[in-house]
Amino acid sequence: MAQRIGRDSGGVFIIAATPFTDRGEIDHDSLRRLVDFYAGHGVTGLTILGMMGEANKMTPEERRAVVDTVIDRAAGLPVIVGVSDAGMRNLTDLAGHAMDRGAAGVMVAPAAGPAREDRIEGYFHAVAQALGPDVPMVFQDFPLATGLPVSAALIRRLSSELPQMMMLKHEDWPGLSKITALRADEETPGTPRLSILVGNGGLYLPQELQRGADGAMTGFAYPEALVQTVALHRAGQVDAAEDFFDRYLPILRHEQQPGFGLAVRKHVLMRRGAIASAATRAPGPRLSATDIAEVERLMARLETRLAA
Amino acid sequence: MAQRIGRDSGGVFIIAATPFTDRGEIDHDSLRRLVDFYAGHGVTGLTILGMMGEANKMTPEERRAVVDTVIDRAAGLPVIVGVSDAGMRNLTDLAGHAMDRGAAGVMVAPAAGPAREDRIEGYFHAVAQALGPDVPMVFQDFPLATGLPVSAALIRRLSSELPQMMMLKHEDWPGLSKITALRADEETPGTPRLSILVGNGGLYLPQELQRGADGAMTGFAYPEALVQTVALHRAGQVDAAEDFFDRYLPILRHEQQPGFGLAVRKHVLMRRGAIASAATRAPGPRLSATDIAEVERLMARLETRLAA
Amino acid sequence: MAQRIGRDSGGVFIIAATPFTDRGEIDHDSLRRLVDFYAGHGVTGLTILGMMGEANKMTPEERRAVVDTVIDRAAGLPVIVGVSDAGMRNLTDLAGHAMDRGAAGVMVAPAAGPAREDRIEGYFHAVAQALGPDVPMVFQDFPLATGLPVSAALIRRLSSELPQMMMLKHEDWPGLSKITALRADEETPGTPRLSILVGNGGLYLPQELQRGADGAMTGFAYPEALVQTVALHRAGQVDAAEDFFDRYLPILRHEQQPGFGLAVRKHVLMRRGAIASAATRAPGPRLSATDIAEVERLMARLETRLAA
Amino acid sequence: MAQRIGRDSGGVFIIAATPFTDRGEIDHDSLRRLVDFYAGHGVTGLTILGMMGEANKMTPEERRAVVDTVIDRAAGLPVIVGVSDAGMRNLTDLAGHAMDRGAAGVMVAPAAGPAREDRIEGYFHAVAQALGPDVPMVFQDFPLATGLPVSAALIRRLSSELPQMMMLKHEDWPGLSKITALRADEETPGTPRLSILVGNGGLYLPQELQRGADGAMTGFAYPEALVQTVALHRAGQVDAAEDFFDRYLPILRHEQQPGFGLAVRKHVLMRRGAIASAATRAPGPRLSATDIAEVERLMARLETRLAA
Repeated sequence: MAQRIGRDSGGVFIIAATPFTDRGEIDHDSLRRLVDFYAGHGVTGLTILGMMGEANKMTPEERRAVVDTVIDRAAGLPVIVGVSDAGMRNLTDLAGHAMDRGAAGVMVAPAAGPAREDRIEGYFHAVAQALGPDVPMVFQDFPLATGLPVSAALIRRLSSELPQMMMLKHEDWPGLSKITALRADEETPGTPRLSILVGNGGLYLPQELQRGADGAMTGFAYPEALVQTVALHRAGQVDAAEDFFDRYLPILRHEQQPGFGLAVRKHVLMRRGAIASAATRAPGPRLSATDIAEVERLMARLETRLAA
Repeated sequence: MAQRIGRDSGGVFIIAATPFTDRGEIDHDSLRRLVDFYAGHGVTGLTILGMMGEANKMTPEERRAVVDTVIDRAAGLPVIVGVSDAGMRNLTDLAGHAMDRGAAGVMVAPAAGPAREDRIEGYFHAVAQALGPDVPMVFQDFPLATGLPVSAALIRRLSSELPQMMMLKHEDWPGLSKITALRADEETPGTPRLSILVGNGGLYLPQELQRGADGAMTGFAYPEALVQTVALHRAGQVDAAEDFFDRYLPILRHEQQPGFGLAVRKHVLMRRGAIASAATRAPGPRLSATDIAEVERLMARLETRLAA
Repeated sequence: MAQRIGRDSGGVFIIAATPFTDRGEIDHDSLRRLVDFYAGHGVTGLTILGMMGEANKMTPEERRAVVDTVIDRAAGLPVIVGVSDAGMRNLTDLAGHAMDRGAAGVMVAPAAGPAREDRIEGYFHAVAQALGPDVPMVFQDFPLATGLPVSAALIRRLSSELPQMMMLKHEDWPGLSKITALRADEETPGTPRLSILVGNGGLYLPQELQRGADGAMTGFAYPEALVQTVALHRAGQVDAAEDFFDRYLPILRHEQQPGFGLAVRKHVLMRRGAIASAATRAPGPRLSATDIAEVERLMARLETRLAA
Repeated sequence: MAQRIGRDSGGVFIIAATPFTDRGEIDHDSLRRLVDFYAGHGVTGLTILGMMGEANKMTPEERRAVVDTVIDRAAGLPVIVGVSDAGMRNLTDLAGHAMDRGAAGVMVAPAAGPAREDRIEGYFHAVAQALGPDVPMVFQDFPLATGLPVSAALIRRLSSELPQMMMLKHEDWPGLSKITALRADEETPGTPRLSILVGNGGLYLPQELQRGADGAMTGFAYPEALVQTVALHRAGQVDAAEDFFDRYLPILRHEQQPGFGLAVRKHVLMRRGAIASAATRAPGPRLSATDIAEVERLMARLETRLAA
């Protein structure tokens, strides 16, 4: 059985895209190929059915099928499953399926509703109770997408009060000081550590590692850039890590555009041979000829730079 | 077969709640009882699986089962089915099922994304094309819930360019002048009429009728109030309609609170014998003892007033 | 000198409109007449330069002139001054001017920025420090307008930690349970009481009083309705208070529409002789002929009802 | 007299920060030094009192004083003045002052209110009418800050119907396809050209130039990077422009963080000797020791890279 995530987990959990055929069906062959691609580039684990995995456009059966294919193919690599859903029952059903199949944990973003932090706190307590203490949880803190900003203090309370809340997917923006605040908390004896993996496409990965993040959980189409940056940093080569990272920054910041960026990412994955079609499921972004020429230019520039 | 909605449709299409058991299962017995309750109070038709029907917390199977139960029980009353979904495929699948079973039309709200009106316009064209010209559509204009305000001009363009876009569920707020603007458009020869039914719990129903609305599409737990108000108004008894309506206004404005109001509505429906349990599906609002005493006081005051 | 607000303040602090001439100048003659109108209808105090006072469209000089005219004319009635501003220096300058002239306190809404509650908490501490402990403060909790929802727990903390935070202008929506929660807190020994006056046009005033509110702070153009409702309620005549209130509800709910409602309110105030022109300052709402006929119809219906 | 902006304007209009003393006063000495700094780095013009200029925290007198100091010191360089304000009268007063002093044009963002595009369109027509046809206008399209997304079609209509609407400050995000759409429009005969300068800190400047932007209007603390990138691009050296730009990207993307980024920018400007203090006016972001070490590290890395 695959290991579960814990409060010391680190490395790169790649946010996996979901490949579709041009007709909009889930392409399980490509999905397997994509898992191999990610594994081949040295990721620590995978996170599936996140926002960039287009989970909200799938049926429950389709989500379960994605879970099955990925966990099966991952061959022991830990797999975190995004289970956010407007309905608690849908959330727990998917989480139950995922954990039964050997998932390493589940990821949950705050449910839609007023941004009052007491409501959000109550929601996570309800989710934790519904899932039970044995399901490791990741808090996805992505206010740009959810419209729900949360204080570092609330994340800390949830981490302390809920033993299963082990990891933060950090993508508040700007959010560098949040990492610093959370790590400062932990100097108080008795404060349980929280694993922090960063998102936002990795846009500030070196800064975030320097502030105490444990790695990345994002879906950049060059996973090797994330993997090597984190590895160098953890090996104490802070400058080398940032030098390495900076070469990828031009295309990374292009891919990080909200909405549109998913189509860019899938195009790069297709061109790199990881998936058969760059299609997103409708309604989703599609690249024009101009968009394609632009991203291919950025790919070519990257190759030139890497070859230099 | 039940009739389909058209550009002249009017009356009261009640937004049907979805009854759940206290354990969170759909309660089909109550659902049938609820259809009878609505029909017995003289509604023109029903709209199911809208936002107040908690559709976003159900699985596709559950949604289809609700469609089946309601259309079966409605015995010819027209039934509009809310099909809004993050995924186009989920939307069209449900719409196909509903129309096969004899639905009168489908209702669609703008999909999440930037509030640019060109994006929203493109989305509705894509939905119309995916559904085909034979599926009557209702545009749900509810910016408070969707975060997506739209101009009267865009609604008019969609109504003119898409023959199947026959009805507006009007719940922009404030939105009285939008009705006036849309009706003024129609004085231009060649402009196809648009049926306008109003939402927002009916809070401004007399004013909206006076400005040209064709009726109501909302879920007030006293449907007879909506039915009689519209009937009196359409019979030319404008003052009597408003007098009649105003007696219900205290409890109507209480029920119209966003989020919380659904629990109020279900409590009233339960107390009136229309459903067995007031439970909403998690995560959903729940009434405290104070909340219950408050709504029951408002119910009692209404009864006293009606008896006077 | 006028008395200052305290933690036991109650009654009706009317939100005063700011009258403008048709050319957009502040009409100080009308402003004095309006103060007389409010005082003549028995209000406890006035709140000026709030959101419905169009303060954000004035210069600092104009705001100070409004303060001077109103405090001068109010002849001892307590006057709360809205001082919210994007800049702390502008805020404290206006607050200093107002308190020098004898204001009863100042009202502050959370400053724009991320909705994280730690940021909002820090902002109010900074404001309190900048104003000093002698300036009584009102927390304006109006998420529909500010986009910044706050938990009851945060309001309680601010009330406890900042001695000068004495009053809540409650207009969260839905927000009835927030009043109940805040009053429940105060059963814990040592918890300082917080004065709670309700806004939202007074839409739920009877319910809010029944839950423990001390009165209203809103700008309904029939202030006598608010005054008498609060007076009856405080005299223990709970049913009579609500009966009295309900007669005004049709026009009150019309005036309570966001944005547009200010133009309705000013039209009623003009028709009642309280101000010379219904003009709002640009950019502001303006009534069409249809809008005017609609509000006048509601006024006539109210008069008929009151005469019955 | 300084030249006015036109529909063919291009180059770099730097968004000027407003320097404050540590006590929060406008530091006019630093402001003059900053103008010299910008001019010395070859900018085409300056834009003052924008969002990053903290104009919303100043009094009208302070804004006018900034206008006077900058136009005086700019010695003929065109100066665009941000005049956005909640009140039309405040807006026109500042615009009048600025144009009298020789400003090159004024910049206006949509006023707060519902995001309906008909409302926004009406607002810009009202502004244009209030300013008159002789005041060149810039449309600031910054939905992340205003909450008001607009379609390319609306920008085009305003550009065509209002002769004075000559320039777009483009900072929609993602927004690359908007530039392409606007330039495609202009292939239709009779469509007046629109100058497009890009914002967002310059994050996508090379891509935006390649899609037809005329330059940049943003406040990156290394204005020479913007100037040289635009100059190389306009000289046809597209690759060299992007190579040059990419070296600055690590610190540029750090400075581009919303809110927080202004403090970063001011710190860099101070360290480069352009202003005396990095203080922002309260309430504004402040750098911690960690934040300062982080940005100084990025500055040092840039220097190393430039020296290589």
